[in-house]
Amino acid sequence: MQNFVYRNTTKIIFGRNTIPQVGEECRKIGKRLLLLYGKGSVKRNGVYEQVVRSLDDAGLSRVELDGVKANPTLAHTHLGIELAKKENVDLVLAVGGGSVIDEAKAICAGACVDHDVWDFYMQKAAVVKALPLIDVLTMSATGTEMNGGTVITNEATGVKLGMGFDALYPRTSILDPETLYSIPPEQTAYGCIDATTHLLEGYFTGEDRSTPLQDRYAEGIIRTLVEIAGPMMDNPRDYSLRSTFMWGATLAWNGTAPSGIGNWSTPNHLIGHSMSSLYDTPHGASLSIALAAWMPWYAKSRPERLRQLGKAVFDIHEADPSRAATQTIDAFVRWFQSLGSPTTLKEIDADPDAFAENVALCAPLWGLPGYSKEFILELFRGSC
Amino acid sequence: MQNFVYRNTTKIIFGRNTIPQVGEECRKIGKRLLLLYGKGSVKRNGVYEQVVRSLDDAGLSRVELDGVKANPTLAHTHLGIELAKKENVDLVLAVGGGSVIDEAKAICAGACVDHDVWDFYMQKAAVVKALPLIDVLTMSATGTEMNGGTVITNEATGVKLGMGFDALYPRTSILDPETLYSIPPEQTAYGCIDATTHLLEGYFTGEDRSTPLQDRYAEGIIRTLVEIAGPMMDNPRDYSLRSTFMWGATLAWNGTAPSGIGNWSTPNHLIGHSMSSLYDTPHGASLSIALAAWMPWYAKSRPERLRQLGKAVFDIHEADPSRAATQTIDAFVRWFQSLGSPTTLKEIDADPDAFAENVALCAPLWGLPGYSKEFILELFRGSC
Repeated sequence: MQNFVYRNTTKIIFGRNTIPQVGEECRKIGKRLLLLYGKGSVKRNGVYEQVVRSLDDAGLSRVELDGVKANPTLAHTHLGIELAKKENVDLVLAVGGGSVIDEAKAICAGACVDHDVWDFYMQKAAVVKALPLIDVLTMSATGTEMNGGTVITNEATGVKLGMGFDALYPRTSILDPETLYSIPPEQTAYGCIDATTHLLEGYFTGEDRSTPLQDRYAEGIIRTLVEIAGPMMDNPRDYSLRSTFMWGATLAWNGTAPSGIGNWSTPNHLIGHSMSSLYDTPHGASLSIALAAWMPWYAKSRPERLRQLGKAVFDIHEADPSRAATQTIDAFVRWFQSLGSPTTLKEIDADPDAFAENVALCAPLWGLPGYSKEFILELFRGSC
Repeated sequence: MQNFVYRNTTKIIFGRNTIPQVGEECRKIGKRLLLLYGKGSVKRNGVYEQVVRSLDDAGLSRVELDGVKANPTLAHTHLGIELAKKENVDLVLAVGGGSVIDEAKAICAGACVDHDVWDFYMQKAAVVKALPLIDVLTMSATGTEMNGGTVITNEATGVKLGMGFDALYPRTSILDPETLYSIPPEQTAYGCIDATTHLLEGYFTGEDRSTPLQDRYAEGIIRTLVEIAGPMMDNPRDYSLRSTFMWGATLAWNGTAPSGIGNWSTPNHLIGHSMSSLYDTPHGASLSIALAAWMPWYAKSRPERLRQLGKAVFDIHEADPSRAATQTIDAFVRWFQSLGSPTTLKEIDADPDAFAENVALCAPLWGLPGYSKEFILELFRGSC
């Protein structure tokens, strides 16, 4: 195992009827808040109403900003920062999915500095101070509710970048699985694929492989997500499935899985983000396309790793590493397809050249300088 | 899944050569500290020297208290509280195993109140404020380095009790697996058994069983501990094994495993603590005796649970739940025996009557009023 530092300060309030606690949680921190949300689904499903009632009961004043997009943009983030500064808010309350929370983190950081918040994403500055953040999660996938990461898109340049800092961990995240009852079925699929990919990145790329605890942690959550995704699409109001999904997605990306595995990287996220920034491909859909192309390349040098994974997740007992790796990849691709998630660039009408160029542009900023245009075109040969 | 709140604020600094960071971590919190340790093993293995050099480098002043016992006592805790008050320390630094850290937590709580610290354990008062605690862990087992729990023994009454509060989470815990190289082999065995039991308690007694994430989390860590315990006793200086043990024991009892399983209890800890308080039985040894008696009773009503566990941990593929349960219990007992840990009361020369009486005395305070003297005698029939 490699040296690591682990600290996760987020308080999770999980379960049915927990949203009415949001006012009290906010009141511990401040008096005036910026309430951030998306395009109105929180108004349709009753979450917004529960939140504002609780805020009112706690005697909090607020300003509101709606309209956060599925892949949140720098321009909209700027609006939030301006508003937070002008209205002198004490904290930000994000109500929504990963996009809303990611943009909220950018606002929390940007509101405390004079320079452009994009500088943080470009690694020109570090976040040392940020407004406190509380969130009510209404869509599980990204794990942002229990980590210090955020990803946004600079739509002027078409670059989607992430950053992570201790100051950006939410103070409190409220997770009520019933908020997931009304999400569209494809979002359930994408959420399961996203959480799975979070675990796969470190599982595949970690430098230290004498990590049985981390392996089993990842394998256990992935197996669970694979088991529940289909049934959950068929039974969207099954509380047991929804709560497993919600907590599983959080555990997948809260820092536990990669602790001790040493250096690791997120190649599939890099590749997927380029699809999203160019074609607005849903994040989960972009990841199933990325993995379907990336895993066969990876399997050439590390078939043993895929064999271990296939055994743990899909009960594949093939002894030959190479054959087992192929069977494991096939099983993942069949799973993606069974959920209706794309596995080729063709399905999203991507221009391979433009896409590969965008990946190569972002790659150095993701710490993957080897991901050149040529390499990406090679990876996706046959997928276009 | 049941509703829950999860928050774990402890910062873990894990790995080789991390002890020299202790001074800097302490300096962030205060200037004058109480350094608490045990009976001198930290002086023999060089840890004490590393710690005081780091404290001196950071310009911190300190008072010291040594002599913490393996099952820490209320009387020694009182000494620490007196000293902390008299010397007006800002924080407590515990250097040692679970006993030292548990006593340190009691000192942190007791130093902030005028009443007897034992009142907290007797549930007559709640800990709302405590001195901050930092620790350097030198023995893995109890998980106290990443939770708010503490257990001490009132040697005047022979009662061993625990309490848990948010204010008692260590601020920072430094875990260097190399500190485990020199622990006696039986402590390695007991540590693995203790961590395993932490996971088994919730696994067996949780009220909600639609918890695949929690099940796999527990099964994965237990399987790992079962695999590494023997090899680690044969190769005490194997870093890979030691680091897996150290992190595994922390993960086993940091609140993740039982989150969402609803109400649960710790019957084997209750039973084991009575052995320790009466006969000074090492904690891990007392747990292997408790489990060997408790599991067969439990299996009568919940064989399916033991079947699932046996499959995940020992690859037992027996389909009949009752037979599978018996095989699983046998596998655990054989594992305990292979590590040299006792599995009967006879081996520790316990007086069954006195022992059963002590369990019954403590049981209501552990939330297990059904654990009467008669029930305990029934459980251990044949073990005496």
